[in-house]
Amino acid sequence: MSRGAGGASMAGPVVDKGADFANYFCTYAFLYHQKEMLSDSVRMDAYHASIFKNTKHFKNKIVLDVGTGSGILAIWAAQAGAKKVYAVEATKMAEHARQLAAGNGVQDIVEVIEGSIEDVELPEMVDVIISEWMGYFLIRESMFDSVIKARDRWLKPTGVMYPSHARMWVAPIRSGLGKAKLQDYENVMVDWDSFIQDTNDYYGVNMSVLTKPFQEEQKKYYLQTALWNNLHPSQIIGAPFIAKEFDCLTASLKDAASVHSSFQVELWEGQLKLSGFAGWFDVQFKGRAEDPADQIIELTTSPSAEKSTHWGQQVFLLQPPLDYECGNIIEGQLDITRAKDNHRLMDLKFTHRLIRSRDANGVLAPFTCSDFYLE
Amino acid sequence: MSRGAGGASMAGPVVDKGADFANYFCTYAFLYHQKEMLSDSVRMDAYHASIFKNTKHFKNKIVLDVGTGSGILAIWAAQAGAKKVYAVEATKMAEHARQLAAGNGVQDIVEVIEGSIEDVELPEMVDVIISEWMGYFLIRESMFDSVIKARDRWLKPTGVMYPSHARMWVAPIRSGLGKAKLQDYENVMVDWDSFIQDTNDYYGVNMSVLTKPFQEEQKKYYLQTALWNNLHPSQIIGAPFIAKEFDCLTASLKDAASVHSSFQVELWEGQLKLSGFAGWFDVQFKGRAEDPADQIIELTTSPSAEKSTHWGQQVFLLQPPLDYECGNIIEGQLDITRAKDNHRLMDLKFTHRLIRSRDANGVLAPFTCSDFYLE
Ligand SMILES: Nc1ncnc2c1ncn2[C@@H]1O[C@H](CSCC[C@H](N)C(=O)O)[C@@H](O)[C@H]1O
Ligand SMILES: Nc1ncnc2c1ncn2[C@@H]1O[C@H](CSCC[C@H](N)C(=O)O)[C@@H](O)[C@H]1O
Repeated sequence: MSRGAGGASMAGPVVDKGADFANYFCTYAFLYHQKEMLSDSVRMDAYHASIFKNTKHFKNKIVLDVGTGSGILAIWAAQAGAKKVYAVEATKMAEHARQLAAGNGVQDIVEVIEGSIEDVELPEMVDVIISEWMGYFLIRESMFDSVIKARDRWLKPTGVMYPSHARMWVAPIRSGLGKAKLQDYENVMVDWDSFIQDTNDYYGVNMSVLTKPFQEEQKKYYLQTALWNNLHPSQIIGAPFIAKEFDCLTASLKDAASVHSSFQVELWEGQLKLSGFAGWFDVQFKGRAEDPADQIIELTTSPSAEKSTHWGQQVFLLQPPLDYECGNIIEGQLDITRAKDNHRLMDLKFTHRLIRSRDANGVLAPFTCSDFYLE
Repeated sequence: MSRGAGGASMAGPVVDKGADFANYFCTYAFLYHQKEMLSDSVRMDAYHASIFKNTKHFKNKIVLDVGTGSGILAIWAAQAGAKKVYAVEATKMAEHARQLAAGNGVQDIVEVIEGSIEDVELPEMVDVIISEWMGYFLIRESMFDSVIKARDRWLKPTGVMYPSHARMWVAPIRSGLGKAKLQDYENVMVDWDSFIQDTNDYYGVNMSVLTKPFQEEQKKYYLQTALWNNLHPSQIIGAPFIAKEFDCLTASLKDAASVHSSFQVELWEGQLKLSGFAGWFDVQFKGRAEDPADQIIELTTSPSAEKSTHWGQQVFLLQPPLDYECGNIIEGQLDITRAKDNHRLMDLKFTHRLIRSRDANGVLAPFTCSDFYLE
């Protein structure tokens, strides 16, 4: 609904800027939301270490911070010795970033520019692009697109990307959430039935032609929308696999636009209920092959008993869950494409089957398709 | 932020259609939300009675339903004998309205048109405009604008508006919500202080320049945003007054754009704590002076012990509440204008003072201004 009229380009459908601001950018204009990110110590520790353990990449360098938000990364870059930091931010948060830079005495180094990175003009090419662009399951928000465009336009041929690499991870999991969601869905449908009855009895209108579309709408909402969750590592029931890897120096817009990954995972012993899949990401700060980091830093959002992040994991629940035996294999394919009416959201399709016997002499089960929405 | 570039017209700032769809219309595209309205029996009973107790206004008439949603009002109009009903709906819900009309055998009478009422062309003028356009405190959503434009363009000179009249009510109230909200606000600020400390200690950045803007942001969120509530009548502590009345047949866009109302209300005995104000509305279906309704129907959203609506009341809480004595008078002025960056939301200002003595010989207290946001 929010898509602008017009044809499709390489980078996907034409984006209605007004709708994009209303849907996407508006949350970032709140300090409350910036604070949430600034309070994520896993995130903060990783970016902080990536800069201060590798000051050689910043000392006397020209830096671009794509989406500076509160300005935190730009200020760190300045503190690490940058000659100049261009800090670009699309929202009114830019004003606060400017205040914060001044409040920390780096107003002569950090130049805050309010505008979309796609639209702004910089006076020079840069040595480093730093950005915290990662959304849920890495690619939600599609902000990596903006970083790629910034790189192609403003990074010197010898330049370095912070972070330099990114990976999407997926693992089969068990979870109690599916049962609760199914119950919610069923309750809503029971309520719908009495609504149909009442509307007919009291108001003389038969609404039953809407039952199917209502069912689909609610199914999507309760059963097919990815859930935010901080999983415990014990909920993982098979080896996580990498669904996609990005080298941030070379990834193209086309690379970022979709994921097609096949998998074959042996299920571990002891659980016997496959509830679905979880997705998360990690990024690495390795510098550049010719100019590697002194110390490689990694930021991971994987399930952890000690350290959770504001990203958590995204959970995709199969209905019903699958019973399995130790050593069974879940195999299939994950396809992720952008939502038709909002390029910052994703449609996911898990095509999967459980191979129940180690030697696959018998007839294999057919594949099942499960559709999900990363909203 | 979501405002389109360009100048201001009589009807307010130029509206970015993409943003308006993303912000406003999108919720109406969900059956779940339509069902919420269809399950509001106060609303349903009033519209149902307005039509079926006054079938003379519908029998063999040409009807326009502005914002038909699920199509319910259009179908009723057809059942009441309309010759033709144009049912205009901006969202994809139009498709469901079409199915529902067919499912109830009135597909030859009800013609569903998907589009903004501002943009569609009808083949003829109409005898009746029916619409359920009322938002929180009547004017939130500014959908009355669309009804006014439809009236000026499509209603015959002898035509009738359903509803025909609308009123905004305000009353002084007591409420326990203010204390809870103040506590929430204070907790967030305490948390902010330790955030400032931690960010300085661990990450070497002093965030204290952001304290004031953060405080303002949170104050707006916790203390100045109108609250949805279903009040008990006993929470009203002085006679409700009418802040604005609309004759739907003659009201102009300018009339709908703002409210300026002065008030003087004697506070009733027994409560002694003025927490703030509540706002609600009612509408009447009276027909037209030359062609009055056979039976006048009223839909009210006032506080009631028995019947609540999905609109509830909007509550505006003074911080701190005012102590008063029986017979004290609260006087002042209410000014409502549209929010600068979203024409469907409102900014409210209560300018008020408590007159503590019946004979006003002494010096009167100065006026206090309390700003609120209807979001
Ligand atoms: N195309 C674009 N141009 C400019 N800013 C953008 C952008 N896309 C996203 N942003 C901004 O990028 C920020 C991402 S959140 C990260 C904020 C900050 N760098 C930090 O690490 O704390 C948001 O403030 C968002 O408004
Ligand atoms: N300018 C406009 N043009 C067409 N439809 C509009 C509109 N402004 C609001 N609407 C639609 O008006 C509806 C208001 S809600 C009322 C729905 C229905 N008439 C009922 O009484 O149940 C929503 O579905 C909304 O999408």
